[in-house]
Amino acid sequence: MPYPDEFEGFMINELGKYKDFKKQTFKPKVFGDNDIDIKIECCGVCGSDVHTVTGGWGDAPTPLCVGHEVVGKAVKVGSKVKDVKIGDRVGVGAQIWSCLKCAQCESDNENYCPSQVDTYGAPYPKVADPNETISQGGFSSHIRAHEYFVFPIPDAIPSHFAAPMLCAGLTVWSPLVRAGTGPGKQVAIVGLGGLGHFAVMWAAALGAEVTVISHSPRKKADAMKLGAKHFISSGEEGWAKPLAFKFDFVLNSADMTHEFNLDDYLSILKVGCRFHQVGLPDEPLKDLKPQQFMANGSSIGASHIGSRPECLAMLKLAAEKKLFPMVETIPVSEKGCAEAVERVKTNDVRYRFTLVDYDKAFGN
Amino acid sequence: MPYPDEFEGFMINELGKYKDFKKQTFKPKVFGDNDIDIKIECCGVCGSDVHTVTGGWGDAPTPLCVGHEVVGKAVKVGSKVKDVKIGDRVGVGAQIWSCLKCAQCESDNENYCPSQVDTYGAPYPKVADPNETISQGGFSSHIRAHEYFVFPIPDAIPSHFAAPMLCAGLTVWSPLVRAGTGPGKQVAIVGLGGLGHFAVMWAAALGAEVTVISHSPRKKADAMKLGAKHFISSGEEGWAKPLAFKFDFVLNSADMTHEFNLDDYLSILKVGCRFHQVGLPDEPLKDLKPQQFMANGSSIGASHIGSRPECLAMLKLAAEKKLFPMVETIPVSEKGCAEAVERVKTNDVRYRFTLVDYDKAFGN
Repeated sequence: MPYPDEFEGFMINELGKYKDFKKQTFKPKVFGDNDIDIKIECCGVCGSDVHTVTGGWGDAPTPLCVGHEVVGKAVKVGSKVKDVKIGDRVGVGAQIWSCLKCAQCESDNENYCPSQVDTYGAPYPKVADPNETISQGGFSSHIRAHEYFVFPIPDAIPSHFAAPMLCAGLTVWSPLVRAGTGPGKQVAIVGLGGLGHFAVMWAAALGAEVTVISHSPRKKADAMKLGAKHFISSGEEGWAKPLAFKFDFVLNSADMTHEFNLDDYLSILKVGCRFHQVGLPDEPLKDLKPQQFMANGSSIGASHIGSRPECLAMLKLAAEKKLFPMVETIPVSEKGCAEAVERVKTNDVRYRFTLVDYDKAFGN
Repeated sequence: MPYPDEFEGFMINELGKYKDFKKQTFKPKVFGDNDIDIKIECCGVCGSDVHTVTGGWGDAPTPLCVGHEVVGKAVKVGSKVKDVKIGDRVGVGAQIWSCLKCAQCESDNENYCPSQVDTYGAPYPKVADPNETISQGGFSSHIRAHEYFVFPIPDAIPSHFAAPMLCAGLTVWSPLVRAGTGPGKQVAIVGLGGLGHFAVMWAAALGAEVTVISHSPRKKADAMKLGAKHFISSGEEGWAKPLAFKFDFVLNSADMTHEFNLDDYLSILKVGCRFHQVGLPDEPLKDLKPQQFMANGSSIGASHIGSRPECLAMLKLAAEKKLFPMVETIPVSEKGCAEAVERVKTNDVRYRFTLVDYDKAFGN
């Protein structure tokens, strides 16, 4: 095992050949005073991983190790690291660095820092790494991360449940809390997949009355189990009509928005409220007119993961209320990575995969 | 003069033949206990009038009398009318009726009532008028309106200045105040036309620091006079770059949004803030992707005029601070209406027309 000079990971060498994972080594960034090395225990599999390795979201550098829902143990901590010590169980999500100096970083919006570095496939700026190394993700033996992007995992949350919270969970948590989700609020979650199932769980736990809108009536039982009060089948003609002006917030976790009749989804918002997207289609929306927002003064927006304080608050609530996602585990390996990516791509997952058994793949 | 049985107006008989105004008579709705008849003194000319008579916004019933920025004197008041007496100077904007019972109406959002009636070209529901009369606008001798949509005009505001406030003014006032425009806020107004020039004046008066973004550098002097602190020429390459993450609110009053590079306009928003449209293009936006909102968690929306309380607050501030629009007056007549509509269409107006001399056209 080459650690600490090199890390090992299951990597893709050509975009599009998205199932050809090979066990390879890669060089991490130069270790900094604020960095933490984590020996990975498990890693969630995110839709982003699939959009990236298939090339659906465009170009990315190869060889590439994806995975940005990482949980493991700190094995080395930099001299300036404050809150993590060797042996702590910690996690890393979809962001691994930001400048921590700009107006966004200084207002708990480091997830909107223009200098941010994604957890994989992004070059570090020189100020963070003289080698400008390309970041590599968590389908690997280790990850090296700035302490600000390393989150302590509460004891009450098993690792394979904590992992998918760090991207999927946070991606829906942040817009929900920023929209004021809480008691007295009507929240609709569109789509019940990896993101959507977290959104239902969080929104209900935050005190809102939750409606799930899905084209899959067979998901109703899961929706109710996760905390939804109502289930609407969007395949039924006229589904939106009885919901006119009902919701304070509509969170769209589906990535087929370009095939939606958007007028239906906008019509269910209260005056001045927002249709918010966290599912990202490869295709643009069709012919949107400002006039479509005028019946209720609504809007449409999107967001990008969440901030550190939001992540810590999410983990705290999950630990306190024992809110765990529905997860299927797959042992990490060339074959296991390929299976997970393929099944996420074909939507054959209820509702999230976590790759496990890292010790078997990478040793103790 | 046929009042009170019929009203006279300058009307369009075929959409598209938008300059063929003919003086004709029309029957108003049945007079109700809450109705007020207003003898019109002047009426603003709105972009909506032009989009309607040209057919740009689609079908509308003819013969049609447009105009929804009406000021005049109450000449008859229904038995249940509370706050207006005969002789009062009052105004009517772009909305003439709503149910006053639904959740929207009960929360000062009657401008989003699903049963609302536009000031012209819309049928009254049976509950408001057994004849289901089509409403007719203010290029006419009189207008009949429900008291809730009749606004007392403060003495300090001359009629020809008050008129354009009632649609143009309110249309930008409402989103500005709902967005929290006030001291400490950075607000950008895109486009300096009828709507935009009101927006600059209101936003500055409400205490925000105002930046005008316009493709017409020659409008800079007017922008500063209206209260802007900065002027950005959007024709200049790279104009958006220095403004990244600057604004709490961007109000787009231009109606050529489909020709914008929307990424530039979104990039100037602070995290979680909105690009808000009050200018309505005939064409849809090009290929919008949720990904475009992700750099700052921004959104895009629109609104529809404003509520009665908002209108009253706007008139109060305008009267107190003597905030008057830049208005050119044109005597109302077949020729005058045609000239006004043509010049609004070709954007040959600084910044609003008010049709005046109604006594000459319709008698005392």
